[in-house]
Amino acid sequence: MKLSQLFTKTIKEAPADETAVNAQLLIRGGFIYKEMAGVYSYLPLSLRVMKKIENIIRKEMNDIGGIEMKTSVLQNKEIWEKSNRWSDEVVDSWFKTKIKNGSEAGLSFTNEEAYSNILKQYVNSYKDLPIYPYDFKEIFRNETRSRSGILRGREFYWKAMYSFSKNEKEHIEFYGKATEAYRKIFNHVGIGGRTYLTYASGGTFSRFSHEFQTICDAGEDTIYISKNDYRKGLKMEPGRAAINKEIFTDDVKKDLNLGDDFEEEKAIEVGNIFTLGTRFSEPFDLNYIDEEGSKNYVFMGSYGIGLSRLMGTVVEVSHDDRGIIWPENIAPFRVHLVSFSENEKAGELYNALVKKGIEVLYDDREDKSAGEKFADADLIGCPIRLVVSKKTLEKDSVELKLRSEEEFKLVKLAEVVDFIK
Amino acid sequence: MKLSQLFTKTIKEAPADETAVNAQLLIRGGFIYKEMAGVYSYLPLSLRVMKKIENIIRKEMNDIGGIEMKTSVLQNKEIWEKSNRWSDEVVDSWFKTKIKNGSEAGLSFTNEEAYSNILKQYVNSYKDLPIYPYDFKEIFRNETRSRSGILRGREFYWKAMYSFSKNEKEHIEFYGKATEAYRKIFNHVGIGGRTYLTYASGGTFSRFSHEFQTICDAGEDTIYISKNDYRKGLKMEPGRAAINKEIFTDDVKKDLNLGDDFEEEKAIEVGNIFTLGTRFSEPFDLNYIDEEGSKNYVFMGSYGIGLSRLMGTVVEVSHDDRGIIWPENIAPFRVHLVSFSENEKAGELYNALVKKGIEVLYDDREDKSAGEKFADADLIGCPIRLVVSKKTLEKDSVELKLRSEEEFKLVKLAEVVDFIK
Repeated sequence: MKLSQLFTKTIKEAPADETAVNAQLLIRGGFIYKEMAGVYSYLPLSLRVMKKIENIIRKEMNDIGGIEMKTSVLQNKEIWEKSNRWSDEVVDSWFKTKIKNGSEAGLSFTNEEAYSNILKQYVNSYKDLPIYPYDFKEIFRNETRSRSGILRGREFYWKAMYSFSKNEKEHIEFYGKATEAYRKIFNHVGIGGRTYLTYASGGTFSRFSHEFQTICDAGEDTIYISKNDYRKGLKMEPGRAAINKEIFTDDVKKDLNLGDDFEEEKAIEVGNIFTLGTRFSEPFDLNYIDEEGSKNYVFMGSYGIGLSRLMGTVVEVSHDDRGIIWPENIAPFRVHLVSFSENEKAGELYNALVKKGIEVLYDDREDKSAGEKFADADLIGCPIRLVVSKKTLEKDSVELKLRSEEEFKLVKLAEVVDFIK
Repeated sequence: MKLSQLFTKTIKEAPADETAVNAQLLIRGGFIYKEMAGVYSYLPLSLRVMKKIENIIRKEMNDIGGIEMKTSVLQNKEIWEKSNRWSDEVVDSWFKTKIKNGSEAGLSFTNEEAYSNILKQYVNSYKDLPIYPYDFKEIFRNETRSRSGILRGREFYWKAMYSFSKNEKEHIEFYGKATEAYRKIFNHVGIGGRTYLTYASGGTFSRFSHEFQTICDAGEDTIYISKNDYRKGLKMEPGRAAINKEIFTDDVKKDLNLGDDFEEEKAIEVGNIFTLGTRFSEPFDLNYIDEEGSKNYVFMGSYGIGLSRLMGTVVEVSHDDRGIIWPENIAPFRVHLVSFSENEKAGELYNALVKKGIEVLYDDREDKSAGEKFADADLIGCPIRLVVSKKTLEKDSVELKLRSEEEFKLVKLAEVVDFIK
């Protein structure tokens, strides 16, 4: 895409009330627009990032047997009364609205009820299970304050998968697969190295739930990362477990066999997986007849990732004082091509790159200085910057610099497409 | 996909309160789930259809210079007060909700305000125009009644594009391109032959707006289709213009030069395009400095399509008493493969088809009769039905039948993949 066709522009200052680094950089780079506290619109650059994150997640969900659907935003009061979560005294983050016929509806803040209710219609026999449906959708939470940019929005974009298994054994097996899928997702988006599988409080059906926590000073959570690794149970890469502060007790440490040597870190919860057991299948009477003819409740699990939070986390952990440093797999464009009045040669290179399927943002603007163009490239943060100038053309070359590094080098014009590819 | 992996099932009866044919068939086929009147969840089969419609629209929007973004659902009261559309007395279909900080927010029912407000930040000079941003998003309208299935939902899925042009001349040129793009969309989804460009009432800046109306008894609109074609102005295919009943007067007929010979038809409005002029750029002070240094308001147009309504319209106009007949381009799967205990040969064929990139729904269920399987295939409505049975295998063949036709024929197993491809 040519920058002259992109309607957004970088701006010098984010709104004064925007204190979060992720939102400041994303607003200044023209990625998002702040509609109100905790509510953002996604401009073309960030929608490109979001779709890449979405596709990474979709692939991993499909690979473990997931099947995509899309539940409504407006939620039926009667359905939520079944699980006793309609009342504002039980759930204090509801947004509710009135329908003209006199009834009330809620704005979707999670999907357990919707899924359990829908599946009640389709599940009868053991042959109908297991099922792993999932959803990408806007989710709404009426937060009292909203100061973390897209890390904690009142409206945010979310993936939720639920597992519907015949029994706990089948559940545990899938839970392990989902854990691995989540690891892959965080690796693919570029934060795997600082994301820890973290034990957190469970519920009635499991002592622990699991969070994926990304080390970051902007995080609201505190975790204790094990320096040793004696864990058993869930299949995991070594050296990557942590305990959420909320359950960081001697008992838990001992039971998890994680040793005594921990480091405390601030972290952002980028995903969580949870054993729900029959918490929702009971109130919805979601049951099946097994091979012996007995009736059993379906055993459930939930697997969530906030895509907008994930994008915000990447910005928090991958930026410098000049701007964002996008990881390769989710960058809005792979290449940021800059030219100074040598637009003919640069245009040829742009076309050659696009023809090879390489995503290029081409700064073809004629009324901007080199300084402005470089500042924009650094703020927007595409992984590779190419510069075509009089000087580089004298050597039949283009200057190539990685956003994550300071050095640049000259690459022959004739070779640069293959070099990048 | 194997039917045994798809959790939905066909059901005999739609909910008693569901009177619309589109929703009855889509619910019975396991495409959608009714959450409440006017609110549906999209199950895997319908999400596949929706994504195909979305991709068809996206391509056409990009081809005329569109740039995709995504605005928030929650809408800021202050922004809507600028255009005087916040009050329930002015707009009676708002859903509103309270934010915990004490303020109010609305649920997005259209995008003029959001876009004008955002672009105010980015448009300064004539060099910044024209711009054609668009959005796919959930839209909410607080309808008094909701009885038309997904033709008129309280929550629905929508594409809205807005054009921001320097002046009326530039606007008219793009308006013509958008008209052609809309034609292509309706042709691609399979309802082009019964969809008419229809003159409807305009606004301050244009005498007419244009609707795309699809002939259908379930339609809420009445249009008058010209049997002659003497129109000038907009470039259109011949013989395809109509006038909405709301403006079907002698004056209009004369001015449009459409003759005197009309047929009255019921129709569904599947798209509309509208000249907004400066109706929104004025209150948002959305202006630019032209080449002479003068300040001008941006000239706007809007271009909407309800994707869920479009899906419902296709079902209304393309079904028989056995079920849906999906047009090729938006069918959930191209092939519905049925086997009766000959699952080995059918499985080989399934794999061969999938390998060639052909989308197949494979009914591999072992506990269903031929009658049940054929009834399901007819209800779900994929374009091609293949049957592998003992009888067909005796002739090294598979039975092929189009959903839209009654006759079937035998095709050699070795040839069927190429035949379909």
